[in-house]
Amino acid sequence: MRTKVAIIGSGPSGLLLGQLLTNAGIDNVIIDRVGKDHILARVRAGVLEEGTVGLVDRAGVGERLHREGLPHDGFSLAFDGRDHRIDLFDLTGGKRVMVYGQTELTRDLIERRERDGGVTIYDAVNVEPAGFDGDRPYVTFEKDGVSQRIDCDFIAGCDGFHGASRKAVPEGAIKTFEKIYPFGWLGILADVPPVSHELIYANHPRGFALCSMRSETRSRYYVQCSLEDTVDMWSDERFWDEIRRRLPAHHAEAMVTGPSFEKSIAPLRSFVAEPMRFGRLFLVGDAAHIVPPTGAKGLNLAASDVHYLIGALLGHYQEKSDAGLDSYSERALKRVWKAVRFSWSMTTLLHRFPDTGDFGQKIQEAELDYLMHSRAASTAMAENYVGLPY
Amino acid sequence: MRTKVAIIGSGPSGLLLGQLLTNAGIDNVIIDRVGKDHILARVRAGVLEEGTVGLVDRAGVGERLHREGLPHDGFSLAFDGRDHRIDLFDLTGGKRVMVYGQTELTRDLIERRERDGGVTIYDAVNVEPAGFDGDRPYVTFEKDGVSQRIDCDFIAGCDGFHGASRKAVPEGAIKTFEKIYPFGWLGILADVPPVSHELIYANHPRGFALCSMRSETRSRYYVQCSLEDTVDMWSDERFWDEIRRRLPAHHAEAMVTGPSFEKSIAPLRSFVAEPMRFGRLFLVGDAAHIVPPTGAKGLNLAASDVHYLIGALLGHYQEKSDAGLDSYSERALKRVWKAVRFSWSMTTLLHRFPDTGDFGQKIQEAELDYLMHSRAASTAMAENYVGLPY
Repeated sequence: MRTKVAIIGSGPSGLLLGQLLTNAGIDNVIIDRVGKDHILARVRAGVLEEGTVGLVDRAGVGERLHREGLPHDGFSLAFDGRDHRIDLFDLTGGKRVMVYGQTELTRDLIERRERDGGVTIYDAVNVEPAGFDGDRPYVTFEKDGVSQRIDCDFIAGCDGFHGASRKAVPEGAIKTFEKIYPFGWLGILADVPPVSHELIYANHPRGFALCSMRSETRSRYYVQCSLEDTVDMWSDERFWDEIRRRLPAHHAEAMVTGPSFEKSIAPLRSFVAEPMRFGRLFLVGDAAHIVPPTGAKGLNLAASDVHYLIGALLGHYQEKSDAGLDSYSERALKRVWKAVRFSWSMTTLLHRFPDTGDFGQKIQEAELDYLMHSRAASTAMAENYVGLPY
Repeated sequence: MRTKVAIIGSGPSGLLLGQLLTNAGIDNVIIDRVGKDHILARVRAGVLEEGTVGLVDRAGVGERLHREGLPHDGFSLAFDGRDHRIDLFDLTGGKRVMVYGQTELTRDLIERRERDGGVTIYDAVNVEPAGFDGDRPYVTFEKDGVSQRIDCDFIAGCDGFHGASRKAVPEGAIKTFEKIYPFGWLGILADVPPVSHELIYANHPRGFALCSMRSETRSRYYVQCSLEDTVDMWSDERFWDEIRRRLPAHHAEAMVTGPSFEKSIAPLRSFVAEPMRFGRLFLVGDAAHIVPPTGAKGLNLAASDVHYLIGALLGHYQEKSDAGLDSYSERALKRVWKAVRFSWSMTTLLHRFPDTGDFGQKIQEAELDYLMHSRAASTAMAENYVGLPY
């Protein structure tokens, strides 16, 4: 089997890249180690930057997103018992974010790919990118017990933090940077109306809390928890009690509770691998970098990588220029590090750290106080939240 | 002996407060444990916010400051071998800072106090504020072997971090917050023209460096050094070699060197004591808080405290209202913490920390990169540097 671009991983970044290639008439194959049902069962991010929405539109898959997505002009930082609104629209001169579940976006992209007859190989075992150091890269895997090989011009590694793509790179060729945070997020999904029509990021002495949503009838709520906690220690009742304690009283009183249908604990991590290109292998999204979810940058960074990579591939195929391929890693990483910095700083600002000490705690409070009284500081937060320019 | 306000400490904050009281016809006495020559030999800060200059003007002592001081409209952040200018004037809508040595300001204040016949008791031994819990506070000390006592309405503790004022407060009544940084500043004074007409704050893999000045012919230069270093390990030659290495090449080449006439190593510390009022004792400046010198906030914070305290004392004596006295601590501390936060963040941004790790180092670089490309972030830095509003 032969294609132009072999894409490993059928999450949103692989699907988005595939669709943009298909639209440009560039042959591509997606290979994933799991099946479609598994992919669609993943519960992930839901806040899209305008740049991400623009890329989805460019791929021709934005129709339902614009119909069902919830445009947000601001969010609340809740502390000291009060809401402090960050007015994204006003502070950034008219920018906003769009709340639309990653699962929904993935579904839209899969449906479109199926309609277009795009090839996706699911349930592939032992997926391995190879030969990317030379001119003839290929991907091997087993499917239904049969070994297969796809020869290609380029490989896009869109297979996430635990995927095969980054692991295929020789150890000495890659440098990694990592920070593990000393807490996790316990998240639930419940079919209850969101407590507020905008997101609430709460800094409370008992820990961070986030009130987010997937739609006007489905809420996505989180509380900071210990890394030693397990899901079975958190009954729904305990979760609702805890999140209400961490919110300003008017939200706690207004909060509609109900049974959760998803509950999980995620550790928080910052991770970057450099570079993002190894010959004819290009890492995209979580395969190269992870951010803590505070600031909602994970999916948006994956889209940002796709933005640079599709430009580079179109340059190669349509304009016979490899300048974009050669600068992909540097350009993508410049934006990645700014988002990693923002996600780290927002995590630091909003969580309670066990070892921060009295001085660190006061610094955090002074920072929140300064932020809410300075238009410049609020603008800096807002411009990062809606997404820095590509 | 009796006065209205007993001021312990004749540094700039004590002198400034004394002058403002004298101008308002409110009797005051300054007591210092050292002599005038000692006070005038101190080498300290030299960058004044507009608010500080305004307070000096209000005290009627700004004449020489305006004649000899150097107004600065910006400064340079030097990293990656280049200058990156922070245009204070442009970013803050017309604000600037004034470079004028603290020693010069102290001299102006002492001369004015002498001309006005203000009372300053130098070389006082065992200075002790007392009785400030009740209505009749007083200060005791020995002078030329004779015990003396000054009765007063209020005591202003302007006697610095190691002074008697904060130490006189019962332990349980005070809460302190502290951070010690894992490096020091080696500073020199030399009669050579400054390498640049604006300050240069340099972040370099070998450590932080600062090129400052006292006048157009006197330079004040610093390099980050180990806390284990001693002054005798740093010959002038070694100092000049080291600072040149940490600067962009065009500065290193242009730098005029010469013998230093002052050389010292200062540790860097953040410290805040809360509250700043104990009955009829009011802490002012370094007696209540210390900031690392990055950001030039120490003297300006002392002036900010004087601003709030003179307002409070005038309210008491002229308007028979104690509202200002009652809110002094809260109002002063609100501004203190913002400056403590800024000094901490600028210190964190510009120094090399031994334990920061690869991830922390990349975050610092991403922050500098973001700062220089975001008007909002540059404005936030500039508005803090010129001084947040009182």
